This record gives sequence, structure tokens and C-alpha cells, in this order.
Amino acid sequence: MSASDDRVEPRLVKGFRDVLPGEMLLRNRVVATARAVYERYGFSPLDTPAVEHLDVLLGKYGEQGAKEIFRFETPDGEAVGLRFDLTVPLARLVAQYADLPRPFRRYQVAAVWRGDKPGPGRFREFIQFDIDTVGTAQTAADVEIIAATREVLAALGVPGFAIKVSSRRLLDVLIAYAGLPPARAHDVFRVLDKLDKQGLEAVKLELTAGRTDASGDKIPGLGLDTAAVDRIERFVTLSGKGRAGTLAAVADLFAGVAGAEPATAELGRIHDQLAALGIGDDVVAFDPTLARGLAYYTGPIFEAFLPAAPEFGSVFGGGRYDGLVERFKGEAIPATGGSLGVDRLIAALLKLGVLTSRASTTDVFVAVLDPGLIAEYQAVAASLRSAGIATEIYLGEQRGLKKQLAYADRIAARVAILLGGDELARGEVTLKDLAEGKRQVVGMTGAREEYLGARVAQRAVPRADLVAAVREMLAAR
Amino acid sequence: MSASDDRVEPRLVKGFRDVLPGEMLLRNRVVATARAVYERYGFSPLDTPAVEHLDVLLGKYGEQGAKEIFRFETPDGEAVGLRFDLTVPLARLVAQYADLPRPFRRYQVAAVWRGDKPGPGRFREFIQFDIDTVGTAQTAADVEIIAATREVLAALGVPGFAIKVSSRRLLDVLIAYAGLPPARAHDVFRVLDKLDKQGLEAVKLELTAGRTDASGDKIPGLGLDTAAVDRIERFVTLSGKGRAGTLAAVADLFAGVAGAEPATAELGRIHDQLAALGIGDDVVAFDPTLARGLAYYTGPIFEAFLPAAPEFGSVFGGGRYDGLVERFKGEAIPATGGSLGVDRLIAALLKLGVLTSRASTTDVFVAVLDPGLIAEYQAVAASLRSAGIATEIYLGEQRGLKKQLAYADRIAARVAILLGGDELARGEVTLKDLAEGKRQVVGMTGAREEYLGARVAQRAVPRADLVAAVREMLAAR
Repeated sequence: MSASDDRVEPRLVKGFRDVLPGEMLLRNRVVATARAVYERYGFSPLDTPAVEHLDVLLGKYGEQGAKEIFRFETPDGEAVGLRFDLTVPLARLVAQYADLPRPFRRYQVAAVWRGDKPGPGRFREFIQFDIDTVGTAQTAADVEIIAATREVLAALGVPGFAIKVSSRRLLDVLIAYAGLPPARAHDVFRVLDKLDKQGLEAVKLELTAGRTDASGDKIPGLGLDTAAVDRIERFVTLSGKGRAGTLAAVADLFAGVAGAEPATAELGRIHDQLAALGIGDDVVAFDPTLARGLAYYTGPIFEAFLPAAPEFGSVFGGGRYDGLVERFKGEAIPATGGSLGVDRLIAALLKLGVLTSRASTTDVFVAVLDPGLIAEYQAVAASLRSAGIATEIYLGEQRGLKKQLAYADRIAARVAILLGGDELARGEVTLKDLAEGKRQVVGMTGAREEYLGARVAQRAVPRADLVAAVREMLAAR
Repeated sequence: MSASDDRVEPRLVKGFRDVLPGEMLLRNRVVATARAVYERYGFSPLDTPAVEHLDVLLGKYGEQGAKEIFRFETPDGEAVGLRFDLTVPLARLVAQYADLPRPFRRYQVAAVWRGDKPGPGRFREFIQFDIDTVGTAQTAADVEIIAATREVLAALGVPGFAIKVSSRRLLDVLIAYAGLPPARAHDVFRVLDKLDKQGLEAVKLELTAGRTDASGDKIPGLGLDTAAVDRIERFVTLSGKGRAGTLAAVADLFAGVAGAEPATAELGRIHDQLAALGIGDDVVAFDPTLARGLAYYTGPIFEAFLPAAPEFGSVFGGGRYDGLVERFKGEAIPATGGSLGVDRLIAALLKLGVLTSRASTTDVFVAVLDPGLIAEYQAVAASLRSAGIATEIYLGEQRGLKKQLAYADRIAARVAILLGGDELARGEVTLKDLAEGKRQVVGMTGAREEYLGARVAQRAVPRADLVAAVREMLAAR
């Protein structure tokens, strides 16, 4: 340690994290499943740079999220920043390339960065899985996003998920119905977005005089009058039997209000198309309390959540945003899409015990009983790998079998292969079942093993039967 | 366009690029193939943040690459930068987490950023596919990286690739043999690294008096004397029959030079293990001209290249770096690994005509002949998707079939489904073979189609036979 003064402390930047193999294997599995489903719907992969011009990210006069952007200068003196979502870069790209197919269906799986305050489970870098269809105003495109996402969640085995649907148009009608000027709309939507987490009474306080939150912070109110708040309450507490019933109740409440007809007709089309696809009220419901915070939505909005794990909030959210591309030079191009919160979904599924993972990809561990036999071990590993079985030879510094098997446990290998001089002479290998009697538990920061008690099976097999015997032992799990 | 003054010009930051679906589909295919092979060797996925502390990236006193780093401050005032490779973050991680399995085999597929001057095919953001084994000094670990990568290149169908192997230890012996002080070593290696691109005469000039390059720039020389250069030339022009012959020639040349024995013994072990794995001289050769520019290598070094496309340089490169982890507080931990240049490999394979791609994932295109039948089209698409066939319904604004089919061509769909009132009444659909007579050509900036002449087949089938008939038409390609 003579050079220790020159050494750098190995540490992460505040708000950033490493994703270790146990969690990465889950992420890869979730991404692969989602990708396969969305590709079946005709969505194609796209990649855009992490770094964009600041005015591309912000618009000419700066917009929401301005504070959150990590910004810097390139060697050419250009003012740039790290993207904070995948929607703005998509809008930039669509405005930039006139010859893209239209409609343009794409998905993008990529990191985004936000410089806001990190907290438990809240990081400054996280990945998003976005799907969007650009260049169509048709409701069928919104329905497709919803239907494909339902299939993704089903394919992942997410238990009892539910998708809520509403429309910004309906919320605009609500503003008129409540007698408020359109300029108040976004403030009201932002407060309504808190209904799920804060409840109706807190929301009513925020619509009127304001309130003090649990940590003692004062949240200012919007100062709306009682008549307006009563009407808003009437809307958000609407209920009906299924989508059709809710829609009828909304149409009834809003009868005669400007814009009510096209808004309810849009939800009617969504209902009809979902019904034709066999997607029932139990999976996709109309929810008048759904608002979503972002300013740019212009039509249908949707969110998926897990009633069994409500603390994780929505695992998918999106909607129609017909005005975003117009921010860039060029024509107005309608668009709709959503974002799957991959890491949040994994956290929820781990909590529910739906996902389990392993510390590594390795199925078979080849112990090194005699370093002189390394070529034999490599040959054994090669034959298993040719058969598609993930195999690792021990290459650490431990000579003893016990310590080598402790390593095999650490990487959650399921079968160990023992081959010493005796076995070699007999033309045999010994197989040891390692997986018997333990269980892998993966948390957000890595994997650990819970031992349920060891019951290790072991057998000798001829070299020629190696692959078949390993397959059999792996299949017995 | 009344608001055009407020609009932002949609454009990329200099040196950055978008990857459109045609190329992304190839990237995903290459990554999936490499991942499957490396996972069979027991490498597990890992992710580290894009943003690291500047001193982590640079070491305490700054090092190579310092100019290239995109740097900025976090809201907490921390000095950070974007990673420029995946090796330094791995070393940081291994030093930071004492409880990782050791050896620790991991792969990471991620973007890296370098602020140097962009040029043709040279971008400031690109993805790397790195594999490394940390925590073992054994030669078998180096051999495993080589063997696994050979399997990746074979699985990708890369024609006639070759892997060159040498060792930094051998180059250290060369420095002694040439009578030079060890302090000159890195300068000499940096010049030798140019042998492939610049040739022997240019390298000899750079070792002595310097030279003027093609653009008229003066490249200073190292000022070595003739005796040293003669000995270096003798080494880099060594040849022998296969690995064993080259090794014998090296041993002969370096007989009696300090360090020669362990260096040749190391290559001897590599040769033996490769031979035992059935990997011949035609695939992996010892090449005394291989130097690799990076300072941190300490043992075996290796590169893969495509003799049929030498202009792309190496598509994989790496080596042993036993000192890198020690830069961080903690113990010295030996490590070896390499990096697959995914984008460069794709460019080379496209050039060689080995890879072909498509503009989208869509196999089947459902035309919208009658917007009133949208639920029927959705049902048709749903049945195909359930059968695993990627299907897209036309959701654009064009009413005419001709324009819709032009869109289907644009996304390179292979079968179109036509369903109007007549077909509906008969319980039929019409299938149109779109792929007949054209070919998809994908360049680095996107996909285009070459028409070889249209010969479109069309047939009507009962709705019940839809999936089978589509499968048949797709299989006929």
C-alpha cells in the first residue's frame, strides 16, 4: 500500500447506482419480453444520442424540467445537455427526417438523466422503455399502445394488473364545466394527478386554500371557489358499471358543455375497439380521476398499475401528444405513446415474489481439482457450451474443493463437475447437484441466497454421457 | 407557421448520430448473439452509470484521455464526467464492492463518450460490448476470452476472421533486447501499434528521425539509434510456421534476454490450451507486430480483424491489465478482457454483404380498405400476433390502397392483407406477397430498398386459414 496516497476512492456519484448481475438478468428478461411483444405489433427499435442541444431539450424559452437537466459544453462550444426523457428526442428526430415512414412506430430502451433530488428508489439515471406511434391522429393508434402493453404485462406474468384510461379532452371539458378559464387547466390537472397518492380531501385543500403536508411544508392552494370544487369533486367521484357505465355517467354529467361530445365519442371508440379485441373492464377501465402531470398531452391518457403493489405507483404511463413535434421547425404531427418503467416494474414484481433471479448466468461449474488438467476442464466446458449449457471453469486462486464450491454457491451454479486423476483414468466425471435446498433472493442492490438446508446429490457418469446427465440434473429443478 | 419564430431547429450535436431502425435491428441481432455466447461462458450482465467522478475516470493526477472527457458539475457541486470506456468503471466497481464473487466475469453493453474530433465513421458516442474476468492471474482466463470471442464471430457468420495474439511481456523483453530503457517502452509500443496501418518504413521513420504524413503534418521521431531499430525490425518481421513456429523463432531471438523465459512460457500455455480446444493456427495466430496502444496492459494482448475488410481495423481488442484496479484504494486485482466494436463490426459485415436488414420489424401489413372495419382489422392482426407474426395495421391518413401499399413497401412488410366488404361477406381475406422482387439494403444512416422488378402474387383464403396461409407465404421467401 505504499502508493496509497495516490489512490482514488472508488465511489459513485450521488444519485447514481450500479446494477449488479442479479438485477441486470431480470432487466434483460423484462426488456426482451417487452421487445418481443412490441415488435409483433410492428414497433421497430431506434436509438438517439444521450446528448442533445439544450434548446432541443428545453424549447426556445425553456420549459418544465429546465432545472433537472445535466448541462455542459462540447469542445466546439455548443450548449448541450443529457436527455431527460425519450419523447423530446423522438419529436426532434421526426421533425428532422422528412423521409421516415409515416406512421412511424418505434420503441427505444435507453437511459435518461434527471438532476433532481435523489431519494430512496429515486435515481438520477434510469432506463425507460418507450413506445410511440408518430404521424396518426387515429384512436386505433392509442388503442394499439394500450393493447400491446396489456400483452407485455401478461407475458411478464404481472398478477392482476389494471390499466386506467381517460382523456385530456375530458379534463378540458371539466375545466369548462367547473366554470374555470382554460389557463387554469394545467394547475388543476397537476393537483388532480395527486388523487391516488394524497386522497380526495388533500386534493380539495390544494384546489382551495392549500395545506400543510406530513413534513410540515406548506403547499399553496389554487384558490378555486366552492362551486368549482364541488363540480370537480362530482366528476372525479363519478362511477358506473364498467367502461360503458362510466362513459354514460360522464356524458350525463357533461351534457351540453362545450367539447363534451367529441371527448366522450373518443372514449366510446376506445371502448368499442377494446371490446372487439376481447379486452374487458377488468383489465382496462375508464377512470375520471386519471390526470397525468405532463402539460403536453392532448387526447387519450393511460396508466398501468399493480393493485397488489400500489406503493410503486404506475409502471406504465402515456398518452396522446399532438403538439410536441410542432415545437420544432416543420409541420404539426400527431403522436401517441407511453413509457414502461422497467426498474420500477422489476422492483414491484420482486416485492410480489413474481420474479426470482440468480447471481449469474452460470448453470454448470467445473471445479479445478488438478491445475495440470486444465485442458480437460476446458474440453468438458466446451462440450457443455456446445450443447447450449452455460458453463464456467473455476479460475480463481483457491486450490481446495470446499472453497471452490463456496464460490460455485456464490454464483448460484446448479451443477458442479468434479474431475480428478481417478475419474480421468476411469473415463468418468462426477456430477454434484448444488441447487438442491436453496433459494435465490434478489433485491435492488444485488442478489443473496437463502439456505433452506443442504441436501446435495452426487453421481459419477461416463464422459460420453456428460451432457445428457447434466441436462437431466438441471431439468430436475 | 405563425409561431415559426419560436420554433427550434431540429438537429444533432456535432459528432453524435441517430441510429434508425434498419441499423438498430442489426445492432440488436449482433448484441443478442454475442450475449448468448458469452453467457454460455458464464459471463453475467452488469450496468454502471454513465456519469462517474472525474478522479475515478482520470486517476488522481489525470491520465490519458483527459482532454476527451465530457465533464460537468452535478447540482451538489461534484466534478463528474461521462465514462469514456467500460474498463475504468469496472475497476472502480470491483475496488468498491468487496463481496463480489471472485473471479468476477461480467459483460456490459453500453454507450461511451469521447469528446475528440469527430470524423467519417468516428462519433463522440458509440456502444461497446465489453467482457472481462477480474480476480484471476491464470492464462486460462485470457484463453477463455479469446475462445468465447471466436465463437461469437463464428456465430455471427463473420467470414474468415482472424485473431492475433501477443503479450506485453514479450514487448518488454523487446525493449531490453533493443537496449532501450524501460521508460521508452510505451512510446515504442504506441509507434509499433501503427504497423498495420502505416507499414514498416513509416514506423521505422517514427522510431528514428520522424516523418511527414500524407496531409503534410510533421510527426516527430523517437530518435532511437540504428542498432535498436534493427533489433526491433528483426522482432516485428519474425515469422514461423504457425503459433509453435513463431514461438520458437521468438524464443530463439530472445535467448538469454532477461524476462524472455516467462514471456514465451505464457504464450506456450496459450498455444497448448487453444490447441486442446481445437482452435488452430488459421483462427488464432501469434503476431509479434501486435502492440496495442493503451498503457495499462500487462500480459497477453489480442485483436480480431477481418482480412476481407482490413480498412475497418480490429473489431475486437483487449488484453490483461493486472494493475488497473490497484489505482483505487484496495488491493491489486489481476484482470483480463476485451471489447467488441459492435458498430464497426456491423459496418464491416454490411460491406461484405454478410448482414442484410430491414426497415422495420413488420412482416404482415393490414391495409385499411374501409375505416368502418377497423375492429375486423384489429381482430386479424391479433390472430397473427398471437401466432408470433409481427403485424401492423395501417393507421396513416391515406385512403387509397396504392398509397397504403407504398407505405407497406417503405416499412419492408412482406405480406399485405386486404379485407373489404366483399371479402368480409365471403368470410375471406386476400393475401398479397410484397417481398417478391426486391431487396433491402442497409447503410450506416438507414435502410433503402433496391427494386429488382415487381412480381406480386395474390390469393384469397378463408379467414380460418389466415395464419397458415400467411406462414406459407412468409416461408416461401
